[in-house]
Amino acid sequence: MATFPVLIVGSMALDDLELPSGTFKNVVGGSATYSALAASTFAPVRVVAVVGQDFPEAELEHLRKRNIDTSGIERREGNTFRWAGRYSANLTWRETLDTQLGVFAGFDPKLPASYADTPLVLLGNIHPALQQSVLEQVRQPRLVAADTMNFWIEGEPAALAAVLRKIDTLVINEEEVRLLTGEHNVAKAAREARKRGPRRVLVKRGEYGALLFDEQGAFFAPAYPLEEVVDPTGAGDSFAGGLLGYLATQPEITPLSLRRSIVVASACASYNVEAVGHRRLLTLTKNDVNRRLDAFRALIHFGNELFF
Amino acid sequence: MATFPVLIVGSMALDDLELPSGTFKNVVGGSATYSALAASTFAPVRVVAVVGQDFPEAELEHLRKRNIDTSGIERREGNTFRWAGRYSANLTWRETLDTQLGVFAGFDPKLPASYADTPLVLLGNIHPALQQSVLEQVRQPRLVAADTMNFWIEGEPAALAAVLRKIDTLVINEEEVRLLTGEHNVAKAAREARKRGPRRVLVKRGEYGALLFDEQGAFFAPAYPLEEVVDPTGAGDSFAGGLLGYLATQPEITPLSLRRSIVVASACASYNVEAVGHRRLLTLTKNDVNRRLDAFRALIHFGNELFF
Repeated sequence: MATFPVLIVGSMALDDLELPSGTFKNVVGGSATYSALAASTFAPVRVVAVVGQDFPEAELEHLRKRNIDTSGIERREGNTFRWAGRYSANLTWRETLDTQLGVFAGFDPKLPASYADTPLVLLGNIHPALQQSVLEQVRQPRLVAADTMNFWIEGEPAALAAVLRKIDTLVINEEEVRLLTGEHNVAKAAREARKRGPRRVLVKRGEYGALLFDEQGAFFAPAYPLEEVVDPTGAGDSFAGGLLGYLATQPEITPLSLRRSIVVASACASYNVEAVGHRRLLTLTKNDVNRRLDAFRALIHFGNELFF
Repeated sequence: MATFPVLIVGSMALDDLELPSGTFKNVVGGSATYSALAASTFAPVRVVAVVGQDFPEAELEHLRKRNIDTSGIERREGNTFRWAGRYSANLTWRETLDTQLGVFAGFDPKLPASYADTPLVLLGNIHPALQQSVLEQVRQPRLVAADTMNFWIEGEPAALAAVLRKIDTLVINEEEVRLLTGEHNVAKAAREARKRGPRRVLVKRGEYGALLFDEQGAFFAPAYPLEEVVDPTGAGDSFAGGLLGYLATQPEITPLSLRRSIVVASACASYNVEAVGHRRLLTLTKNDVNRRLDAFRALIHFGNELFF
């Protein structure tokens, strides 16, 4: 069965993370990194991003070893996007200590010609005008998924609305879909978001799992109830990457393959948070994912018999 | 197949509810009411509670029509327990406006002799010393489940610890199991709670579903993603009632029947919140529950095939 390539655009970063387990400097991060590593477990990946002179070449080599095409990663004069954050003891919130945009401030995604025919596209959480620009550089993809955040919802509503009209899958946090639509109830919020363009809305709820709303109704995938979470950074991005990576292995995007992709996405996110930064993703295999899929099946199994 | 009776002890109340949909006075409520109505969908129920002179006899008649034995409901001089609360516009929080204990202040559960052999016991959220007293009046039940709350966790830790040692199933909110154990991570908190007595801990997470932790590992049941929630009052109590009511239909409490009971419990809670107070529960049938079980199956279905 042919596996399609996945195009991922987003940030690449060097993060300083203050976690309950310690402080970690210059951790390779960014939405494109996490998404690409997760997706590469299943499919060839093409990344569009920008890094500075300080980004280690060895890290790009790690990506290439996982069948990630880095020819769309531009290296520019200046520093890589840097984010510093501190997590609370129970990892339920974090504060940003510092943000240095560096070369990311001038990011203007230019796709190599070889990327133009990529059938699955993930628009990571960047300015909606840049998401739009990427869409203009690809030819009729089968599936376009996009993430966004409060910053663009509040600051760039018109540009975001234009992107929403062009995508089929919105992957968004629960709080953000509420902000986007003004609806608190998640089912109503998803219904409203779907009116704005995407035929399906996938609501990420962190440790509470994810809910898909589409023309088939609702689908729910739990998060795995881990006893040891080390670092939540990139959980949502590895979720989105796993989603598209799995869909790239499917000859067709059916209601069932879509649901399966969400369980795969949850499995990827659950592995990602078990180690600092992108470490666990660097060695993630289909076998690992399969083991967690078995755990998910056990987690929700209640038999098929009638109850009464 | 024989269905066993269920014994339920808890509060019976008259509530004033300020909901986004309106203000409703003298709504019949209390943990025993909600739990008993949900359980009675599946099994005969025996209630131990206290009401005042102001509690409508017609309401007790509603209970009896659903095969709920009210001979353990004592009617005393004075007023029924009254609670007044106001919910926020999105129903995510509520504030207590007034509490009048009334006859509930002197509640001293006395079981009719006919209740002593009830095989399934639900100790609703009352003073742990009263929960203990009920346990002393029943003979070797097959299953004892108990609920509790922050007020008893903080105020009566010794009495609560004694109850925990005598029950097999703790049904508790996420925030409360954190408070009880000092562990934020829900899997760790449940593990710690299990060390204190109950072999299984069922963590209620409201709209995020419920997690069971027992010797089999973890089981997760989602809450149904309703678009219209009218009144969350009693959701946790109808959940617990549905749980025991369904288990009462089972010849044995197996890992699978337990998991099924949690899905039934979620179905009962999802119906309960669709109307003000106990209204929807008054007419709830097994057929209704079956319909929602089908919806739950569809909600989490992702096929049984291997993914890779």
